[in-house]
Amino acid sequence: MPLVRIDLSATRPPAVRRAIADGVHQALVDAIGIPAGDRFQIVTPHDPEELIFDPNYLDVARRDVVYVQITLVAGRPRELKLDLYRQITTNLTNVGVRPEDVFVTLVENALDNWSVGNGRAQLVDLGAVAGARVEP
Amino acid sequence: MPLVRIDLSATRPPAVRRAIADGVHQALVDAIGIPAGDRFQIVTPHDPEELIFDPNYLDVARRDVVYVQITLVAGRPRELKLDLYRQITTNLTNVGVRPEDVFVTLVENALDNWSVGNGRAQLVDLGAVAGARVEP
Amino acid sequence: MPLVRIDLSATRPPAVRRAIADGVHQALVDAIGIPAGDRFQIVTPHDPEELIFDPNYLDVARRDVVYVQITLVAGRPRELKLDLYRQITTNLTNVGVRPEDVFVTLVENALDNWSVGNGRAQLVDLGAVAGARVEP
Repeated sequence: MPLVRIDLSATRPPAVRRAIADGVHQALVDAIGIPAGDRFQIVTPHDPEELIFDPNYLDVARRDVVYVQITLVAGRPRELKLDLYRQITTNLTNVGVRPEDVFVTLVENALDNWSVGNGRAQLVDLGAVAGARVEP
Repeated sequence: MPLVRIDLSATRPPAVRRAIADGVHQALVDAIGIPAGDRFQIVTPHDPEELIFDPNYLDVARRDVVYVQITLVAGRPRELKLDLYRQITTNLTNVGVRPEDVFVTLVENALDNWSVGNGRAQLVDLGAVAGARVEP
Repeated sequence: MPLVRIDLSATRPPAVRRAIADGVHQALVDAIGIPAGDRFQIVTPHDPEELIFDPNYLDVARRDVVYVQITLVAGRPRELKLDLYRQITTNLTNVGVRPEDVFVTLVENALDNWSVGNGRAQLVDLGAVAGARVEP
């Protein structure tokens, strides 16, 4: 039940923005085992000056960063997270984003922190989420 | 001391956006016991294509999702969270949002993660927050 | 490796917005010891009615709040956080923000929650972050 925030330059055309969102989602499906239907994303285009980044911190040559922040239930093991970063980056590279410009950060929360419609806490009812080793 | 982010379609008129923000706040007051004055909200209207969601994941028929992400101090018991989801959904339904379109997720943090003006950490000084069973 | 979201009124001119972003970053460098190059910020200007806040909660007289939400690796001791709030507020006051209008909240996550380019998890490779007492 990830919530994905994608903040990127408005100079990337709408079709590319959508392809970027598709690529992030597919990586969540492939790397962590998120169900294909479990897709919730907020895309925010920005004037370029609103996206501030260092052009070479940690020896990564950035030019036009795509910020991806994913809130998801805790418990995915580290190896799945590392694979997620690789797959997001591969998928975004395939739609024209330079790999250096892919920035991802995760925020983890609990099963009872989600309501995805009708006022219910669906994950509490389900009792688990895909890809989590330790149930939070 | 919640910080509430509401991302919704710009096709919802400004008066409705405000009513949605009012409804989320009132639910925090009624369900968790947040003080009425403890209101901090960021509303971001989007072009519809920027808000991506599955139209029926977990058998919820979504059409025009209102994303509500609430950062708040950890420690509220599960039953208060479940009541919060119900009350947000009721209040938003009352201002024209379909219950299926109400998406809520919480991000929990610590008492010393807040400064609400003048560079002070007011919650550290207070030593507690409303509705928290376990003080973090 | 903080990710900083700054949401403020579009009535603040672009040069002031940039100065605010500069001030937040300098405070992270000075108070927590973030490397100067470790700068990643998303600035979102809003119509004033999109930024909702109580005008005097906890006896702070707010008029035009600048919301600063910082996602960063857990482990910074409380005294560094308190100093961070003070320094952000001082720096923003120096560029024309009233101290009452500086709102800061932190969201803490783990070392393996970051990829800052090229699909790698750079903080896992580094094994630590500046200013953290307890390695998460």
